[in-house]
Amino acid sequence: LPVRISELGRRADLPIATIKYYLREGLLSPGRSTAATRAVYDEGHLRRLRLIRALSEAGGLSLAKVRAVLDAVDDSDLGLHETLGRSHYALAGDLESTAEGPGWRAARAEVDALLEELDWRVHHRAPARDQLARALLTLRQLDAVPTRETLYSYADAAHRVATQEIAALAALATSAASTIEVLHQAVIGTVLYEPVLLALRRLAEEHESDRQLTLRPDPATPNTSHD
Amino acid sequence: LPVRISELGRRADLPIATIKYYLREGLLSPGRSTAATRAVYDEGHLRRLRLIRALSEAGGLSLAKVRAVLDAVDDSDLGLHETLGRSHYALAGDLESTAEGPGWRAARAEVDALLEELDWRVHHRAPARDQLARALLTLRQLDAVPTRETLYSYADAAHRVATQEIAALAALATSAASTIEVLHQAVIGTVLYEPVLLALRRLAEEHESDRQLTLRPDPATPNTSHD
Repeated sequence: LPVRISELGRRADLPIATIKYYLREGLLSPGRSTAATRAVYDEGHLRRLRLIRALSEAGGLSLAKVRAVLDAVDDSDLGLHETLGRSHYALAGDLESTAEGPGWRAARAEVDALLEELDWRVHHRAPARDQLARALLTLRQLDAVPTRETLYSYADAAHRVATQEIAALAALATSAASTIEVLHQAVIGTVLYEPVLLALRRLAEEHESDRQLTLRPDPATPNTSHD
Repeated sequence: LPVRISELGRRADLPIATIKYYLREGLLSPGRSTAATRAVYDEGHLRRLRLIRALSEAGGLSLAKVRAVLDAVDDSDLGLHETLGRSHYALAGDLESTAEGPGWRAARAEVDALLEELDWRVHHRAPARDQLARALLTLRQLDAVPTRETLYSYADAAHRVATQEIAALAALATSAASTIEVLHQAVIGTVLYEPVLLALRRLAEEHESDRQLTLRPDPATPNTSHD
């Protein structure tokens, strides 16, 4: 590097047409012109392309959401906390359509009460409040609301991973890493650690299912679920 | 209940055409015939429709995956542990396309080593192993692999929620709940508790970001990330 667009495409494993599309859409900054119709691209372009690709493919984000997240990363006036916040808001998108009705308002009030009890400082309009309310409303309609104990165990687990993640981010921010590296890591952590957590939960479920559901502590106890 | 299909549609908040489609596809069992062209549907049909709708809309599953999950629920020969396992396998779908190359094999070996260390009993071909490997491979390509500490904190958090969830399921199985209720709860927990966990993680991230990144323990320390 620097390289021409064809080599950039090869290294990012993306078709040249896709890269040109990102350039036109302003998702990727222009290369350095070396002639009227030629430009070269550097390591920053490659890193950016890999991030776009990971957010859209592995993260499953629409290009509109990728753009909104990258806008937050690109806004150099924002500090790390604000960039994380903007990314979260961008990722959540628009939940307005479900945000109505008495069921919705009850679910949202439940979320607000939970956060109050947990003593988490979260903006009143944080989209994750609506995401949680929507998830709980769906479960209520299925008559499958998590017990208070389960909800608290989820909150506790979420708090543990978030504490560790933000600490890692803070450590990176005070290291020799560049601002853009820190912001990239913040966005990657928010979006692409989700599948890590979900896969580990499935694995742990299988382990616990095997441990708790196939070994019976007291074989004499009748199991009414298999009638 | 029992009710005609029009009333069933109203209660499930689904168009009649959709219900007829599910009937044709065998996702929903036929109603009880009351005349040559008439049938009535009961509480079980309504519960089934709500589950299908929640899995496809809130859970974001394709109808093929919904069907595979419901097939596991419908197979009354399976116990709870096996039903959970079949659901997990059905949900994971086909990851074959990414399961190649030395990078993939290294990521998969890393997952296997992690589970060995954690001493989790998980089938060698469990699809969640591949899901985790794929997520780690994506992160490696972005040079953003979680630290060992972060990965272990994730595993610990996942284990805590899984332990609580499976215990709740085991308690339900030994209660007066019917087999179908227990299986529904198992599937709902697997799929529809995911957004609960993810929303709580976002909320905890905002809280911890505010706590760790906006308050500096030592204001004299230069913060090299904001240069």
